[in-house]
Amino acid sequence: MTRDLTITAVRLTPILVADPPLLNTQGVHQPYTPRLIIEVETADGVTGVGETYGDTKYLELARPFADKLVGRQVSDLNGLFTLADEVAVDSSRVSGQVDVGGLRGVQTADKLRLSVVSGFEVACLDALGKALGLPVHALLGGKVRDAVEYSAYLFYKWADHPAGVASEKDDWGAAVDPAGVVAQARAFTERYGFTSFKLKGGVFPPDEEIAAVRALAEAFPGHPLRLDPNGAWSVETSLEVAAELGEVLEYLEDPALGTPAMAEVAAKTGVPLATNMCVTTFAEIQEAFTKGAVQVVLSDHHYWGGLRNTQQLAAVCRTFGVGVSMHSNTHLGISLAAMTHVAATVPDLHHACDSHYPWQSEDVLTERLTFDGGKVAVSDAPGLGVELDRERLAFLHRRWLDDDGTLRDRDDAAAMRVADPEWTTPSVPRW
Amino acid sequence: MTRDLTITAVRLTPILVADPPLLNTQGVHQPYTPRLIIEVETADGVTGVGETYGDTKYLELARPFADKLVGRQVSDLNGLFTLADEVAVDSSRVSGQVDVGGLRGVQTADKLRLSVVSGFEVACLDALGKALGLPVHALLGGKVRDAVEYSAYLFYKWADHPAGVASEKDDWGAAVDPAGVVAQARAFTERYGFTSFKLKGGVFPPDEEIAAVRALAEAFPGHPLRLDPNGAWSVETSLEVAAELGEVLEYLEDPALGTPAMAEVAAKTGVPLATNMCVTTFAEIQEAFTKGAVQVVLSDHHYWGGLRNTQQLAAVCRTFGVGVSMHSNTHLGISLAAMTHVAATVPDLHHACDSHYPWQSEDVLTERLTFDGGKVAVSDAPGLGVELDRERLAFLHRRWLDDDGTLRDRDDAAAMRVADPEWTTPSVPRW
Repeated sequence: MTRDLTITAVRLTPILVADPPLLNTQGVHQPYTPRLIIEVETADGVTGVGETYGDTKYLELARPFADKLVGRQVSDLNGLFTLADEVAVDSSRVSGQVDVGGLRGVQTADKLRLSVVSGFEVACLDALGKALGLPVHALLGGKVRDAVEYSAYLFYKWADHPAGVASEKDDWGAAVDPAGVVAQARAFTERYGFTSFKLKGGVFPPDEEIAAVRALAEAFPGHPLRLDPNGAWSVETSLEVAAELGEVLEYLEDPALGTPAMAEVAAKTGVPLATNMCVTTFAEIQEAFTKGAVQVVLSDHHYWGGLRNTQQLAAVCRTFGVGVSMHSNTHLGISLAAMTHVAATVPDLHHACDSHYPWQSEDVLTERLTFDGGKVAVSDAPGLGVELDRERLAFLHRRWLDDDGTLRDRDDAAAMRVADPEWTTPSVPRW
Repeated sequence: MTRDLTITAVRLTPILVADPPLLNTQGVHQPYTPRLIIEVETADGVTGVGETYGDTKYLELARPFADKLVGRQVSDLNGLFTLADEVAVDSSRVSGQVDVGGLRGVQTADKLRLSVVSGFEVACLDALGKALGLPVHALLGGKVRDAVEYSAYLFYKWADHPAGVASEKDDWGAAVDPAGVVAQARAFTERYGFTSFKLKGGVFPPDEEIAAVRALAEAFPGHPLRLDPNGAWSVETSLEVAAELGEVLEYLEDPALGTPAMAEVAAKTGVPLATNMCVTTFAEIQEAFTKGAVQVVLSDHHYWGGLRNTQQLAAVCRTFGVGVSMHSNTHLGISLAAMTHVAATVPDLHHACDSHYPWQSEDVLTERLTFDGGKVAVSDAPGLGVELDRERLAFLHRRWLDDDGTLRDRDDAAAMRVADPEWTTPSVPRW
C-alpha cells in the first residue's frame, strides 16, 4: 500500500461569526466572535479541518506552528506537542493576567499553545481518517456509544445587540428573568430535544438566579439542572446557593474562583461541583483532586490540547473517581463534530455535554450538525464527517478582513460598555 | 477506499518456552513457561499477532473472549474492555489469594481480564497497522524517539535446572554471589550493550544482595542500578538497604509489600521507590499517589490491559509527578515489539525499560528482535513489524500439548521443590 501522509500545506483562515447578545458575569458577547479555521493538506491531496480560538494571541502562535508542520506526517500527533514547545510565546501574553474573554483563569504560555495545538490535532485526525477511510472515533479507539447527549445551554440574553452596532438578528428573544429563562428552555427543547439544562449565571444577584433555576425545576421536573456563575460568588454565597438549590441541581459549576475556594465549598456541601475554570490543565489536577475541590471536570478539547489529551484527562478523572463531561465556548460545527467523536469514546461519560452550537446561526460547513432528542449522532464517515463550505468560509473571512480590529479579540466587557459606558469587569467575588 | 476490517477468525495457541533457572523470592523459574500466542484475522486476510500469559486461568478467559471477537471491527479497541466484562471469571480464580507465579499481588477478576485483553489489543493493533500500512506506534499517536532503551535484567541463577527434569541448556552459567552477578552483567553488556542494570533480589539475605549491588557499582561506576526483592523485606530492612545503597541506586523496586509499607519506606528515605506490585491497576493508583508511596510506576502492558492503557497510565503518572517505565515478566518477541512501540510514544520515559527477552532463547518469530547499545530500534514497518514463524509456533505448541499439566501453570515454588523438597513459599516479609 503506497500512501503519502506527509503534510504539504496548512491553511489558516481567521473568521468572524455572528454571536447573540449572551450575558455572563464579565459582560456580553460581542455581535461577532473570532474563530480560526485550520486546513491541513497531505501529499495525496487529502484535506483535514480543525477549529480553535481566533483571537490575535492564538493567530500569533498558529502561523509559525503551521510553518513547522509542513513536511511532517499527519499521523504524528504526539509530535505536535514537541513542536508547540518550539513556538515562542510573546511574554506580554503571559503576564499572569486573567484572560478577559475566555473565563479560564490566568493565561499561561502552555494554555495558549495547547489551544492552538488542539485545532491542528483535530485537522490532522480529520485528514488521517479520510486518508485511511476511518472515522475519527476509530482513530481514538472506537466509539462506545452511537450518539452523544448534549444539554441546553441557557443564557440570560438581550433581545438584540446594542443599537448602532452591526449585528445579525436572532430569533431567541430576551431572557432576563425566570419566565424568560423557562421560555428559552422550552424553545431549546422544542428545537433540539434537550432534556438537561445549564444556565450561565453570575449575571444577576444570586436570588434572581436561584429563582430562575427553581422556575426551570418546576417547568421540567426531574430533569438535570446546572448553574454556572463562572466563579462570581464568595464561598459563603456559593454555600447559600447550594443549600437553596441542592435538591434540584445535578451539579453546581464553578461557583467560586480557584481551587482553594472550590475546595472550601466542596467540603461543606453535598452538591457536586463541576469546573472548567480551576482545572483547565494537567498541572492543575493534582491540587484540585487531592483537596477534593471538584467532582466533575468539564473538558474543553481546545483548552486541553485536543481529543487524545481529552481522553487522557478522562482516564485521570476515572482513576481518581472524578466525573468528566465537556465544556463549551462559542464554537462551530467542526468543533462540535470533534467533541462528539471524542465523547463517543469516553466510557464513563455520565453527564450531558455542553455546547454553544445552537447559538451559532452561522457555520463553515455545507451541512450543519443536528441534535435529535438532544443528541448528536456519531458519524461513521471517514474523518470528522463534515465538509467545508468554501463560499461561507470566504464570506466569514471577508468579515474578519473588513473588521477594524475591534472584534478580532473577544472582549465581553468592551461589548457591555457599548450599552453601559460605566461598565468595568466586576471584581471577584462579585457576590 | 474499500477495506473490510471485520475480524473473521481468532486463533489461540498456547505454548511452552524454555526458561533458565532464574531465582526469585518465591522460588525458581520452571524449565518451560507457558505463553499464549493470539492471532486475529480480518476479512481482508490480514493477520495480527499478540502475546500474553499462557497459564490455564488466562486460557479459560481467552477462549470465550476470542469467540466474542469474531464479527467485530479490528479497530474497535475501546470495545475490548466492554467485551471483557462480559466474560465470566470463575470465582475460584479470584479468591483473594496472591498469585503464585506472577508476583503481582492479589488476583482479581479485573486483573485477569486485563491481562487477556492486552494480548488481543496488541493483535488488533498489529492487524490494524498492517491493514492501514502504519506502524503500531503511529496508531498510538506516533513515536517521539527512534529507539527504546532497556536495562540488563540480572538474576541470581543456577547453572542448570535440577538434574532429572527436561530442560534446555543455557550458556549464562551460575550467578549466586557478587562475582557471579558482575560476570553476568558483563556478559549482558558485551552481548547487548546495556548500560543500566537491575538485579532481581529477595533471594539471599539482604547483606549478600547489598554486596552484589556494591560490586556492580564498582564494576560499572556511574551506571544506573536497581534492586528488586519483590516485596520480600520489612519496612526496617528496606530502610537499612536504602541507607546502604542510596548513593548508587537509581531506584529501589518494591522493597516492601503493599502501599502502606511502601509509603512508610518512602517517607523515610530519599531513594526513589519503583513498583510493579502495589500499583498494578488504575484502582490502586489513588491511594499510592496520595500517600507518596511510589516515585516510579513500572507499567506492564499485559497487566494494564494493553498499549493504550499504558499510555493512559503514563498520563496519570505525568499528571501527579510520578515517573513511569516498563516492567517485564517472561515474554517473547511479540511483546518486546509491543513494549517498544508504546514506550516510543511516551514522552517522559526517563528510565530504561525492563525486559526478560535476553533470557528467552526461544521465540515464535522468523527473526529475533535485537538490542543495539542496549536499545531496540522502533520499527516503522506496518503493524508491530514482526513475523510469526509457524514452524516454531507449532513446535512450541506441541511441547504444550505433550505436557502432562505440570508446566501449564507457572509455579516457581513447585520448581524450587524439585531441588529442595522442604521449600515453601516464604512468608512476607522474609527479612
